[in-house]
Amino acid sequence: MSNDAEAPVVPVEAFEPPYYAAVFTSVRTEDQSGYSETSARMEDLVKDVPGFLGMDHAQTPGGLSITVGYFRDADALTAWRNNAEHLAAQKRGRVEWYQSYTLHVAKVERSHGFERA
Amino acid sequence: MSNDAEAPVVPVEAFEPPYYAAVFTSVRTEDQSGYSETSARMEDLVKDVPGFLGMDHAQTPGGLSITVGYFRDADALTAWRNNAEHLAAQKRGRVEWYQSYTLHVAKVERSHGFERA
Repeated sequence: MSNDAEAPVVPVEAFEPPYYAAVFTSVRTEDQSGYSETSARMEDLVKDVPGFLGMDHAQTPGGLSITVGYFRDADALTAWRNNAEHLAAQKRGRVEWYQSYTLHVAKVERSHGFERA
Repeated sequence: MSNDAEAPVVPVEAFEPPYYAAVFTSVRTEDQSGYSETSARMEDLVKDVPGFLGMDHAQTPGGLSITVGYFRDADALTAWRNNAEHLAAQKRGRVEWYQSYTLHVAKVERSHGFERA
């Protein structure tokens, strides 16, 4: 999720609840033309949403992809949900890039982190 | 997440809210001895928890791993959280397998799915 190849991979931290998590789980189609550019653009755009806290992403090669975006409150989520470029990207995703997906929007009630000493 | 290599990969479905999602995001250490056996055992065990709905997993090679477990209610989550084998596995994970992790436990307020026609 970083342009800095030297940066260590670290999960998004545990914030003080309550906050929101949007869990987006998908399986892609074979033709991914334009996907990576759009994905990079969405990553840039979401950072400008007030209340955006961070995002984690993992993808099993040839398998599931999971992206989790964290937001301070429902207003932040709504702002991202209604972003015009984001809506257009979603529409294109349904036409071209996604075989199937599920979105779960959830309010985080507790969280904790661990980091090796 | 399946032993059947022929089964298509499909994300866990969107259930009727409210339900719970436990988002576990981790970075592993280099020595993963015993991890895959324990992980498979946990996958079997969690299926026996009343109220367990399903689990999605994705891992970027050399990068982040995200596992999301879905549970019908807080009681189901508590049962899994207090499972003795699960507690032992978590402890071993902190000693051996995880460089860092974050757990976010969240109540799903809305969800939807998409599947290509």
